[in-house]
Amino acid sequence: MKLYSAYRAPNPRRVLMFLAEKGINGIAVENVDLNQGQHRSADFRDKSPMAKVPALELDDGRVLTETRAICTYLEGLYPEPNLMGVDATERAFIEMADRRVEWYLMVPLAMAIRHTHPGLAVLEQPQFPDFGRSQGEKGVEVARWFDQQLQRQPWIAGDRFTIADITAFCALEFARGLLKLVPRDHGLLALQGWRDRVAERPSAQAV
Amino acid sequence: MKLYSAYRAPNPRRVLMFLAEKGINGIAVENVDLNQGQHRSADFRDKSPMAKVPALELDDGRVLTETRAICTYLEGLYPEPNLMGVDATERAFIEMADRRVEWYLMVPLAMAIRHTHPGLAVLEQPQFPDFGRSQGEKGVEVARWFDQQLQRQPWIAGDRFTIADITAFCALEFARGLLKLVPRDHGLLALQGWRDRVAERPSAQAV
Repeated sequence: MKLYSAYRAPNPRRVLMFLAEKGINGIAVENVDLNQGQHRSADFRDKSPMAKVPALELDDGRVLTETRAICTYLEGLYPEPNLMGVDATERAFIEMADRRVEWYLMVPLAMAIRHTHPGLAVLEQPQFPDFGRSQGEKGVEVARWFDQQLQRQPWIAGDRFTIADITAFCALEFARGLLKLVPRDHGLLALQGWRDRVAERPSAQAV
Repeated sequence: MKLYSAYRAPNPRRVLMFLAEKGINGIAVENVDLNQGQHRSADFRDKSPMAKVPALELDDGRVLTETRAICTYLEGLYPEPNLMGVDATERAFIEMADRRVEWYLMVPLAMAIRHTHPGLAVLEQPQFPDFGRSQGEKGVEVARWFDQQLQRQPWIAGDRFTIADITAFCALEFARGLLKLVPRDHGLLALQGWRDRVAERPSAQAV
């Protein structure tokens, strides 16, 4: 198998962290240069028709894209440690937590970055800065909701580390880098404490 | 179990169609009035803290939100007919297809509607009409990609009807109603043909 990734991009990082948490080695990683538009090349679009990273090329030649779908596949191949739920009920509750992170935290933060950061103009055209700023404010509101949750439970989906923690960590680290958004600066101390605990895991070094 | 739904909203409709495809009866449905802001009431937020429909209240009192997570749970309870994949590999490929629909078709169409339609001002504040129009154009581009796929395969995820068809159908029907977007008008005849085939299924009446 071969993973098409991209330096510093949050979605490829989610897969790299997932691999590291599982202790999966031996998957070749090839970095696609987004700033050079390599993801839009005909060669890469043959593999990932919507020009998205990450993409996982299987040994039979099929290519799987979409971060969470790649993780579903890997969880099937490497069930331990379980990160997505041991049965349909737990899978559903972890998927709920993961989607809350994706849709209500990661999307507004990513929109804020893509529509306001000059360095992202190469990926997002046209940029709408007012929309981006409004999304940034919404992202902080949702971060506050996660902070309240983390005052009551140690991990995003409940009592154990799951894929939802990976998604939230990669989203927040991306926002820390490009929006200078730090939970502590907004008084979100439970979220900051959780972030610092995740950052200590060896998988957090996978980028 | 009890499903909190909302008239004409695309995400609740996905769950209703999923239930109808499975032949699941007997789940009580309560409609939440989004225009009256009932989803933001304290009572409803006790169940769905992010004020989202659909939400499925289980018999043990737990509440599951997020459309696709609800479907994962229901697929576990009612495995037949299978709509999300019979093993981890097929689950992953169907999830990929479903996410492509959600992220690249449904999101831009929903953004176009939420940021340009006066009737949606009650749900989306502030509205950014220029951003909305740009998203509408992107949605049509992606619809063209799905049209090309449907020239080669009968269903969104491949050779059989799956949850990805439900997602795409509900997204496009929402855009047809509020953006007057009709695939045929853009020359997307394979997409139109697929849409018309889905519209003939009894589950398409579930709203």
